[in-house]
Amino acid sequence: MSFPESSSRPYEECGVFGVWGVPNAAALTALGLHALQHRGQEAAGIVSFDGDTFHQHKALGLVGDVFGNQDVIAGLPGEAAIGHNRYGTTGGSHVRNVQPIYADYAFGGLAVAHNGNLTNAATLRKALVKRGCIFHSTMDTEVIVHLVAISLYDTVIERLMDAAKKIKGAYSLITLTPDDGMLGMRDPLGVRPLVLGRMPGHEDKQGGWVLASETCALDIIGADYVRDIEPGEIVVINADGVKSLWPFGDVGRRFCIFEYIYFARPDSVLEGQSVYEVRTRIGGELARESGVDADVVVPVPDSGVPSAIGYAHESGLPYEMGIVRNHYVGRTFIQPTDQVRNLGVKMKHSANKAVLEGRRVILVDDSIVRGTTSRKIVDMVRAAGAKEVHMRITSPPTKHPCFYGIDTPSEKHLLAARHSLEEMCKAINADSLAFISFDGLYRALGHQGRPVENHTNCDACFSGDYPITLVDKDGNLIQQ
Amino acid sequence: MSFPESSSRPYEECGVFGVWGVPNAAALTALGLHALQHRGQEAAGIVSFDGDTFHQHKALGLVGDVFGNQDVIAGLPGEAAIGHNRYGTTGGSHVRNVQPIYADYAFGGLAVAHNGNLTNAATLRKALVKRGCIFHSTMDTEVIVHLVAISLYDTVIERLMDAAKKIKGAYSLITLTPDDGMLGMRDPLGVRPLVLGRMPGHEDKQGGWVLASETCALDIIGADYVRDIEPGEIVVINADGVKSLWPFGDVGRRFCIFEYIYFARPDSVLEGQSVYEVRTRIGGELARESGVDADVVVPVPDSGVPSAIGYAHESGLPYEMGIVRNHYVGRTFIQPTDQVRNLGVKMKHSANKAVLEGRRVILVDDSIVRGTTSRKIVDMVRAAGAKEVHMRITSPPTKHPCFYGIDTPSEKHLLAARHSLEEMCKAINADSLAFISFDGLYRALGHQGRPVENHTNCDACFSGDYPITLVDKDGNLIQQ
Amino acid sequence: MSFPESSSRPYEECGVFGVWGVPNAAALTALGLHALQHRGQEAAGIVSFDGDTFHQHKALGLVGDVFGNQDVIAGLPGEAAIGHNRYGTTGGSHVRNVQPIYADYAFGGLAVAHNGNLTNAATLRKALVKRGCIFHSTMDTEVIVHLVAISLYDTVIERLMDAAKKIKGAYSLITLTPDDGMLGMRDPLGVRPLVLGRMPGHEDKQGGWVLASETCALDIIGADYVRDIEPGEIVVINADGVKSLWPFGDVGRRFCIFEYIYFARPDSVLEGQSVYEVRTRIGGELARESGVDADVVVPVPDSGVPSAIGYAHESGLPYEMGIVRNHYVGRTFIQPTDQVRNLGVKMKHSANKAVLEGRRVILVDDSIVRGTTSRKIVDMVRAAGAKEVHMRITSPPTKHPCFYGIDTPSEKHLLAARHSLEEMCKAINADSLAFISFDGLYRALGHQGRPVENHTNCDACFSGDYPITLVDKDGNLIQQ
Amino acid sequence: MSFPESSSRPYEECGVFGVWGVPNAAALTALGLHALQHRGQEAAGIVSFDGDTFHQHKALGLVGDVFGNQDVIAGLPGEAAIGHNRYGTTGGSHVRNVQPIYADYAFGGLAVAHNGNLTNAATLRKALVKRGCIFHSTMDTEVIVHLVAISLYDTVIERLMDAAKKIKGAYSLITLTPDDGMLGMRDPLGVRPLVLGRMPGHEDKQGGWVLASETCALDIIGADYVRDIEPGEIVVINADGVKSLWPFGDVGRRFCIFEYIYFARPDSVLEGQSVYEVRTRIGGELARESGVDADVVVPVPDSGVPSAIGYAHESGLPYEMGIVRNHYVGRTFIQPTDQVRNLGVKMKHSANKAVLEGRRVILVDDSIVRGTTSRKIVDMVRAAGAKEVHMRITSPPTKHPCFYGIDTPSEKHLLAARHSLEEMCKAINADSLAFISFDGLYRALGHQGRPVENHTNCDACFSGDYPITLVDKDGNLIQQ
Repeated sequence: MSFPESSSRPYEECGVFGVWGVPNAAALTALGLHALQHRGQEAAGIVSFDGDTFHQHKALGLVGDVFGNQDVIAGLPGEAAIGHNRYGTTGGSHVRNVQPIYADYAFGGLAVAHNGNLTNAATLRKALVKRGCIFHSTMDTEVIVHLVAISLYDTVIERLMDAAKKIKGAYSLITLTPDDGMLGMRDPLGVRPLVLGRMPGHEDKQGGWVLASETCALDIIGADYVRDIEPGEIVVINADGVKSLWPFGDVGRRFCIFEYIYFARPDSVLEGQSVYEVRTRIGGELARESGVDADVVVPVPDSGVPSAIGYAHESGLPYEMGIVRNHYVGRTFIQPTDQVRNLGVKMKHSANKAVLEGRRVILVDDSIVRGTTSRKIVDMVRAAGAKEVHMRITSPPTKHPCFYGIDTPSEKHLLAARHSLEEMCKAINADSLAFISFDGLYRALGHQGRPVENHTNCDACFSGDYPITLVDKDGNLIQQ
Repeated sequence: MSFPESSSRPYEECGVFGVWGVPNAAALTALGLHALQHRGQEAAGIVSFDGDTFHQHKALGLVGDVFGNQDVIAGLPGEAAIGHNRYGTTGGSHVRNVQPIYADYAFGGLAVAHNGNLTNAATLRKALVKRGCIFHSTMDTEVIVHLVAISLYDTVIERLMDAAKKIKGAYSLITLTPDDGMLGMRDPLGVRPLVLGRMPGHEDKQGGWVLASETCALDIIGADYVRDIEPGEIVVINADGVKSLWPFGDVGRRFCIFEYIYFARPDSVLEGQSVYEVRTRIGGELARESGVDADVVVPVPDSGVPSAIGYAHESGLPYEMGIVRNHYVGRTFIQPTDQVRNLGVKMKHSANKAVLEGRRVILVDDSIVRGTTSRKIVDMVRAAGAKEVHMRITSPPTKHPCFYGIDTPSEKHLLAARHSLEEMCKAINADSLAFISFDGLYRALGHQGRPVENHTNCDACFSGDYPITLVDKDGNLIQQ
Repeated sequence: MSFPESSSRPYEECGVFGVWGVPNAAALTALGLHALQHRGQEAAGIVSFDGDTFHQHKALGLVGDVFGNQDVIAGLPGEAAIGHNRYGTTGGSHVRNVQPIYADYAFGGLAVAHNGNLTNAATLRKALVKRGCIFHSTMDTEVIVHLVAISLYDTVIERLMDAAKKIKGAYSLITLTPDDGMLGMRDPLGVRPLVLGRMPGHEDKQGGWVLASETCALDIIGADYVRDIEPGEIVVINADGVKSLWPFGDVGRRFCIFEYIYFARPDSVLEGQSVYEVRTRIGGELARESGVDADVVVPVPDSGVPSAIGYAHESGLPYEMGIVRNHYVGRTFIQPTDQVRNLGVKMKHSANKAVLEGRRVILVDDSIVRGTTSRKIVDMVRAAGAKEVHMRITSPPTKHPCFYGIDTPSEKHLLAARHSLEEMCKAINADSLAFISFDGLYRALGHQGRPVENHTNCDACFSGDYPITLVDKDGNLIQQ
Repeated sequence: MSFPESSSRPYEECGVFGVWGVPNAAALTALGLHALQHRGQEAAGIVSFDGDTFHQHKALGLVGDVFGNQDVIAGLPGEAAIGHNRYGTTGGSHVRNVQPIYADYAFGGLAVAHNGNLTNAATLRKALVKRGCIFHSTMDTEVIVHLVAISLYDTVIERLMDAAKKIKGAYSLITLTPDDGMLGMRDPLGVRPLVLGRMPGHEDKQGGWVLASETCALDIIGADYVRDIEPGEIVVINADGVKSLWPFGDVGRRFCIFEYIYFARPDSVLEGQSVYEVRTRIGGELARESGVDADVVVPVPDSGVPSAIGYAHESGLPYEMGIVRNHYVGRTFIQPTDQVRNLGVKMKHSANKAVLEGRRVILVDDSIVRGTTSRKIVDMVRAAGAKEVHMRITSPPTKHPCFYGIDTPSEKHLLAARHSLEEMCKAINADSLAFISFDGLYRALGHQGRPVENHTNCDACFSGDYPITLVDKDGNLIQQ
């Protein structure tokens, strides 16, 4: 009778953040995680290092709830800290699955925070358990921690590089070590994001360094953006500055295109592109590709807002707030039987009759997953008096699950995997339905269209073209 | 070192909601309160009546946290329930100050939920305590509860009317009684809002009735809007339908104009006017009154959004999301010393450089209170590269405190109370500053301008024209 | 499936404590309440006064849990404090029913802690509610608070004396006032206990004063016992010392005899008699009155221990720990179906086979209430191999409920109310059963036997001779 | 300013319990742990197995608090369960250190509960960490869990025997496996206790099996005592009954003598001897060895009670409750500065003046550790008016720390390690002081005196004769 409301974002991922060489590193990390809250709302954790000892605090809840307490921050002293936001998985939420993971090794301690997904985690885990390793969580991150533990190399950096060569997947990693400082690492193809920032110096004290999933986390603490960590790069950050290691060689670059469409915050800049601008340009492309005669352009908030603005600019139609979002949604809510139709969607969205009544409405949304939410939104807009509802989607049809760190339903639950455009339009009860084309999407990114060779991005969820081997899946160790 | 973040809304009031004659009344009330969450985030309470016994649950927290638990709702049986959202006062938050209040009388029980403020509460309280009444909270509502208790009339309705004649102020009241059903009441001038809705019937069961602060709370549960409760009207809702009582006679109508500007949700309709439309019209008036050469119109979210859209339409300038709001703000947050400038505002707002850099920006916001937040926002926008920042405010200057239920700073903290327009512009570091004129504001409401006689609304916070006697203040029982 | 274990003491009342004129009064009060924990385990509360303001903290739980926190005590500053332990009622435990009660009056604040029971509380409450008083708890104490509020006298002492003349019952009362200091009061017949103690002075600072239900609470804080408050006496304690008021005149003295038998701690001295010595003398009387040929004397711990020692001394039989008590009993416990016989009693008591096997056992217990626990204990002792079990009870048969502050079952649940000695013996499965005689009991108190006139104690639960009018009961306002 | 009160027992160890083949195994385990609560009050945990899946719940607190909730027990389904009580260590209490430990292996899951101490835990841990094992707790138990994981044997029983051969120490172990049932194991010398019991069958269902630290835990659930597990024995309990394995061969038998003196519950039978009878016999030996002219024998409760009874019987002096124990002691308590002398001891014990005043008192206690508590008790007894105080101790002087599972202070804190009998007597302010002799102690156990060869018990804490190699200590891996 109760259902998860806050975790009803259709896609979920994580956020990572780290600070090195700045007083009150844990307080800054809490702020950084707060700015990355959209990447994970279920749990948050911070590990700090005070030059001698590691300290940690991890709990279920929003960053502000977990770290909003002065005493908690005071218990995390030191000028180095890393943190993690976890997204909400359905079912068993346990604190033991909250990152960062901290482990004591023979050579010292190590803390690891990780965003993404290993495609051979189950395979590696099976082998490690066979060898006698004891796992305490179900997280991919723990696989890395054990690989570091059993590596035959001497130093933590060598051990981490050794482990990196064994794992496959799409990930960004931040680790904290007692002797080598803070390490950042992006997967060989750079599917998941990681940026480097610098805190301004203070009097005669030099500024420290920051690593974060997105630039919006640099902005909140006043750090300057330096550059994106490169695909396959390991950065070692300590008193000697930033040193780069390249364990993998150059194997290409395939940044996740869905970060632009949905995941990242609009004020972030990823791989040199403003997320906001990409979205408004997608809106413009959509208007050109599949314009329709209508009275008003209405975004499905929040992700649809910039694209709807772009669509309205391009089409000359007025942009209006036809759907209002309630941001006070808690974890769960009661459903009072069938009395209240479409309650789930109404908990978050409500129709603004003044805008919709008697109008032909263009709705702009980021994607269609199962189609159930889209249907409820269209129904709600119609119930508020809209004459026509035209749905415009800022991504190509989502036909394939992501194995690279974004939590999507399996293929059989994806509406686009099994239905034609017409069937989908009917299923969501719209008067018309259009998705952005692959070429339109890539144009919005500054390309001529989707590259035929030398792919620049991962668009596997739309194309099925998976750039990283799916070891566990092909070995039937996971089912989707 | 920690400061209240979620209660940093510049103004605060409360929300009330009630259901009569519908199964699972408490669950519906929880939903209604959720839709009214913007009116109060600190605490929530529900009292239900099952035909025999009253049940209550009240706690600090968001509605979803307090009532998201199936067991809590199951403990509130019955087909009648009333509820209340409390705003966050600074300092001592205590559960004993959470509404609704329930009291056992010689004639039976009574539950009361109340939005607004009595202007003679302190005076009445002093007299009641002298008489031997013992107060258990610091709420105005308890004054009413005691007045009902000591009334010499027999029935609860007569006693409530007796009490109503003794209190002065601006309020909406919902009460639940065992024998007479649910009562709703609006103050003689109708300063605070209260609307009546009806739940659709079910099979052979007739539909029940709903009272709410705003229509958006009717929408979420699928209730139909019937009408606004009239100023000075008491409605008695029970199996006989809705009966009206008029204890005060006609003394005019002065609905709070600030509900349109800031407080109500944009998808609500109050006194026959769509809040969203009033706000977009205010934006249009502002553009006509104080247009300025610029590149982009940017709202300060969320309240500035509709007005910015209206301003952009009227001016022909592009509307852009130049400021992004973080909605995951928890109760409090740590401030890591001075390292992070303007942290307070950054917890909620971040600048979107892609929109602001090199541009002449028109910012649209609802009001200026102390000026500190406005200054921080202007600074943040400049730091993101804006060439010029022109602030446009959708209300006249806020020069006077509200004594009618909206929690405002006292006069000495109101920037506009002591400074000229030029001084204010300088204080907030803007290139230009303009407020909507009184006439412009009233035009947006459909008038020719501000009525010279026969005032239609309360605009005391701008004009100082207080329509209800300030008994406690004039008796020096309260200081502002 | 779960049942209350900690409240399974057959009888329950409360404990009160107060300190005036000593630094850290609240910390001392917490210690005093800890020493009185046996009088009430469900909840604890303290109100302190710092010369200017009252402070309070009340919560469900043991004293050590509620006040074991440094911060809690730090929040209760001042050199005056009063506190209260509440016993565990079945069913609705609410913090609002925890004492002391604090009320704001026109003439200032007043805190009240109260042990005992008013026999006209329901009657008074009905009249007060009719008058318009609003009650927030179901406690007798609140009746007194309202009577003080509506009294027409001027000073708090006069008002309290006015209230005292209206209430009937058995009670000890401690109140704290801003201007008059700490007041202590015992009911006209002195049924419930209250003692006065003095803290030793410190350097040039004079010692303060202490009021407590029992002397054991003086001992723990190192206070010297001064005297018992007299029946019907009010003591006013402040900088002028201790002043006595006598609102009632001399109406006799009827101290509760059951405090000696069961309720008070053995190391307390009440009305000049050591509780431990009274109990050992009762054991001796029992041995003389109803000796039996046996091998060993075994107490049912803890209350039976001193009497069993007295019995063993008198009879020359060895005293042995044949029943071991588990003191770690929490609030509730799970019952794993019928697998475990007599689980309830086993949670608290276990049989010591080494003592019982093959022996003829004399069990010494304080009373038989429903008989179910006695039966389980006898069965447990038999199951451990006892050849014979002879039950000796240190009170006369409990035939009548107490209306004077001890929570007993109603008459229909009292085994002795409806059964002969033989029937009772059979019901509890004993080989023989004997109760102390009335004369034996009074001899143990130093009398010749039970006084025919000029009764010295209340023994209504055994004799049915109720010395205080049962107003509510006779008016059918309460049912037992 | 606050100090740990409940952990002020001078010695601490743990309790283990397991059930196999009985419905509601977890509920029975909770009861068994409750009966073993005296062995550990800080935390409790249960792991159950339902034939398919393991379930666990562990938390800080008393058994009744942790498992008194129906829902918690319902979450632990199955006919097999093991549980653990942990004693209170000073400093860092963490749930991650609560047993049982559960681990997933390549061959299936395994749960382990463990009472005792490994003398080579630090040495083994160092080697395991070097090998790449990652520890998540600081418990000895986790060493065993890793040894099982890395064993090269195939079956869990072989792996456990392999691990058993690598560990040194004094321990009792209960493990739960999916395929092999429940395993119990006692260290080669049987220093720590473990008994086997059987639940009576039910209708046509055969009874299951129980393992427990003491027989009192069999009694509470109505299980019959079968036998003690032998030193060095592993029992494998499943549908085939009970099978014994002997990995170590016969190396002697050295059951901890201090279990009789202090640790075990008096109603338990260990290695064929009633703990109660051993204690009363020790009291008798003490009276014979070091009788003194006095008026009364008073136990220091609770451990001194049986010995004081034995002493009184032997000496002909009266046994009296001269010290009353307060059993409601919570975790911590506030110390209101120096006002209250000897508060720590008064929280638990109070003097009964009626018994002590003007008397020559023999106090019977189990041991003297630091001497501070003994001093406070003697002072308290003197302050209550005792003319003479003669301390009689039921153990030889405690001169050496225990490395076998009982938490004792290090040698430098043991009064007897550095002082003569005369110095000790003076230190605790007694008129005379005597300890039981080694021979007297062993006579109470049924021997002629302390065996010169073929030692039967471990008495290292008195004699310094450590029967198990202290690997970590000698390798300087631990300091005492």
